[in-house]
Amino acid sequence: MSFSVQFEDIEDAARRIKPYAHRTPVLTCSELNDRCGAELFFKCENFQKIGAFKFRGATNAVFSLSDEEAERGVVTHSSGNHAQALALAARTRGIPAYIVMPDNAPQIKKDAVAGYGAEITYCPPTQKDRESSCTALMERTGAEMIHPYNDARVIAGQGTAAKELMEDVPGLDMVMTPVGGGGLLSGTALSVKAMSPDTRVIAAEPAGADDAYRSIKAGHILPSENPSTIADGLLTSLGDLTFPIIRELVDEIILVDEVAIVSAMHLVWERMKVVIEPSAAVPLAVLLEKNLPVDGLKIGVVFSGGNVDLSRLPF
Amino acid sequence: MSFSVQFEDIEDAARRIKPYAHRTPVLTCSELNDRCGAELFFKCENFQKIGAFKFRGATNAVFSLSDEEAERGVVTHSSGNHAQALALAARTRGIPAYIVMPDNAPQIKKDAVAGYGAEITYCPPTQKDRESSCTALMERTGAEMIHPYNDARVIAGQGTAAKELMEDVPGLDMVMTPVGGGGLLSGTALSVKAMSPDTRVIAAEPAGADDAYRSIKAGHILPSENPSTIADGLLTSLGDLTFPIIRELVDEIILVDEVAIVSAMHLVWERMKVVIEPSAAVPLAVLLEKNLPVDGLKIGVVFSGGNVDLSRLPF
Repeated sequence: MSFSVQFEDIEDAARRIKPYAHRTPVLTCSELNDRCGAELFFKCENFQKIGAFKFRGATNAVFSLSDEEAERGVVTHSSGNHAQALALAARTRGIPAYIVMPDNAPQIKKDAVAGYGAEITYCPPTQKDRESSCTALMERTGAEMIHPYNDARVIAGQGTAAKELMEDVPGLDMVMTPVGGGGLLSGTALSVKAMSPDTRVIAAEPAGADDAYRSIKAGHILPSENPSTIADGLLTSLGDLTFPIIRELVDEIILVDEVAIVSAMHLVWERMKVVIEPSAAVPLAVLLEKNLPVDGLKIGVVFSGGNVDLSRLPF
Repeated sequence: MSFSVQFEDIEDAARRIKPYAHRTPVLTCSELNDRCGAELFFKCENFQKIGAFKFRGATNAVFSLSDEEAERGVVTHSSGNHAQALALAARTRGIPAYIVMPDNAPQIKKDAVAGYGAEITYCPPTQKDRESSCTALMERTGAEMIHPYNDARVIAGQGTAAKELMEDVPGLDMVMTPVGGGGLLSGTALSVKAMSPDTRVIAAEPAGADDAYRSIKAGHILPSENPSTIADGLLTSLGDLTFPIIRELVDEIILVDEVAIVSAMHLVWERMKVVIEPSAAVPLAVLLEKNLPVDGLKIGVVFSGGNVDLSRLPF
């Protein structure tokens, strides 16, 4: 298979982002091992800059631009971690970032993006308004669009987390990530299958936002329909770049319910003393619910991020 | 000066506890560096077994016993981290632990101690009742008393955290810990001054529980009088073993108020994505409040623990 992104692109991305991104630690927890009946290795992207893996993809995209392109800046639409990631990556290169955010985004996220010096454009919270706002910005500034996940440079950047995990923990039987738009999942699958073809790649998805699960079953991309989950990083649908990689390289997508996600998140805070956001807890929720046979396996789990509003916790 | 504990005892403790305790990581955070105007290195004892440094002292004490002594078990009074630490250390050696807890201790702490297989004796929440309960247990069982901090084996064990920190981060100008009974502080001071005599040792104490500050000023131990602070690990008074070490080796004790403690704790959760308990936030609160001139210094800070009731957060 030939995809829009190759493992060589991930190797290039790793070299490109090395001066700017953290090589995040891998943590273990004997209590969680006991509960899941497996040996778990958590890749802590919640400790990454801006608190999520998204900094990898954004940084790879920003530093892939020629000087001429870079000068005109970058643009995206996001109310989440990608907005902060792109804003910080652009500031790091010293170029403008234009971020389109829905006008109902939480103040804490608006402040964070503004804090990195990005220019924010507010729009009504519909897909159509987001896209037309981006188009207008690109026409006005000549800035380069960096999509949150349906972008080869972004996918390659996200794949560097699993590459580090595979280097740090040899012999993994399985690697798990959550799936939203599929940037992290497709990048992870490319790294894992290139470095260790027998290692399984399993995605975990909230049952309340099961578009990736349904898309793979249907054989084509189905949009997210009124998704409802506390895992607010996983509301988006797959893209035409992420879908074929996931269809080909991901072994299985497993669904899990909301109660299990909150309970897994709580357990990580309580036992590992580590702050993860709901989206990051989804793979562990699958393991704790025993929705997948894993007895005695060595499993890598990507903690995708740790950005939560501490004044609005679900427990 | 000759104290009841020497640095050699800490070196012995390090060898003794190595098979059982985690060598905890040292984390950094550029945002916190910027805010404090110094370079901070956080020794993460919140990641230690049972979620606090107390496991070091308890383990050193339990594994210092002869086989004959060990067989009869260990006893202590504590409603906090030392109770869990001693219970787990005893279980690790396969010997009985008898823990005296006040009958008004939170259910979550009773459950944790019971979960490690310790025998719990409940008593009214007064110092007198605690001591008479311990005495009765020792008479009945022949078990060895392991005081939470006024015990040379415990102090030596607590000193191993700073020893690791000094090994991992050479050239520290200053090391900071919170102070309650003084076990962590005295062990830290012994390690730091033995390994690097010019490195300053600074203690941080809640203004609402300022007995160590007042004791050092007075030149003798003053009891904690109706202490009131959210830092519930720091309510106790210094002991006759910890006081002389602290008086001689600690450079300064700095007070800080409750609002600053909660705010420092919040900042660590939010920015570092790490769960610390209020007591662990006290040194950082001193730095953030600029209660101490530290411009450009390299400072080690011990995050003493991460045991909080997630359903009762102060923010």
